Amino acid sequence: MIFPFEIDGESFRWPQVDLKAYNSSGTQSSGMSKQILFDVDENLPVEIRYFEAKAGGYSALELHQHVHGVIILRGKGHALLGSEIQPVKAFDRIFVPPATWHQFYADEGEKLGFICIVKGERDKPARPTQEQITELQKNPAICDYLRY
Amino acid sequence: MIFPFEIDGESFRWPQVDLKAYNSSGTQSSGMSKQILFDVDENLPVEIRYFEAKAGGYSALELHQHVHGVIILRGKGHALLGSEIQPVKAFDRIFVPPATWHQFYADEGEKLGFICIVKGERDKPARPTQEQITELQKNPAICDYLRY
Repeated sequence: MIFPFEIDGESFRWPQVDLKAYNSSGTQSSGMSKQILFDVDENLPVEIRYFEAKAGGYSALELHQHVHGVIILRGKGHALLGSEIQPVKAFDRIFVPPATWHQFYADEGEKLGFICIVKGERDKPARPTQEQITELQKNPAICDYLRY
Repeated sequence: MIFPFEIDGESFRWPQVDLKAYNSSGTQSSGMSKQILFDVDENLPVEIRYFEAKAGGYSALELHQHVHGVIILRGKGHALLGSEIQPVKAFDRIFVPPATWHQFYADEGEKLGFICIVKGERDKPARPTQEQITELQKNPAICDYLRY
């Protein structure tokens, strides 16, 4: 089964799947949309999602035991991974290990779109407590980027 | 961990991973290379590979019980899926169900590159027997495309 891709306005779109505003339960993001490209299948035990942030948008600041395999599909921006901020651009791949704070920022004046692959059975993301935010903000390398 | 992407000549390249000429065991392909973007992880039970066919190249004609989740990353061409040939282009997504003959063709004068996601534990691909080739060739919709 082939599911064609389209450009809808300026957004990447797979018309056969729902386009959802993204708001991971209990976490906070901005200007993000989500499309599930491949849902969990008995023969493929992962969910393959496409997230797109508008210019200025960002994903939720979160942490969980499951890992992310990420491939940027469009644009550029930055990513928080643990205690570092790094630039990301189209086709970079990013591995988010377990229990690692992470957040993606479309902070280069353009959309940032990426595939994110997760295990079907997985724990729920945690968002930072006020105590954890205070701790994270002590790191000068990341404090100006954090959004929560 | 962020693994930057590069263009190497005209090829898509992730320098931290090996670039392999592709020759799935016992099957026949042409002008294909393979890079494993994410290997199987205890927390992500799939292998995420990038295949790139040179203009004129093609993947192996094969069939297996495991499924493929495919996302085209560059170029255009055609794909055999079961008893049909369909055009494919950048960012189309393709689901290859179990026990379905499939093959990808970079037959539009440019490279065709795609991500292919498979389950970590999976059966080996089978290549067609002479009997199966004879049977497949009876279908006028696909007979001019088949490479084996």
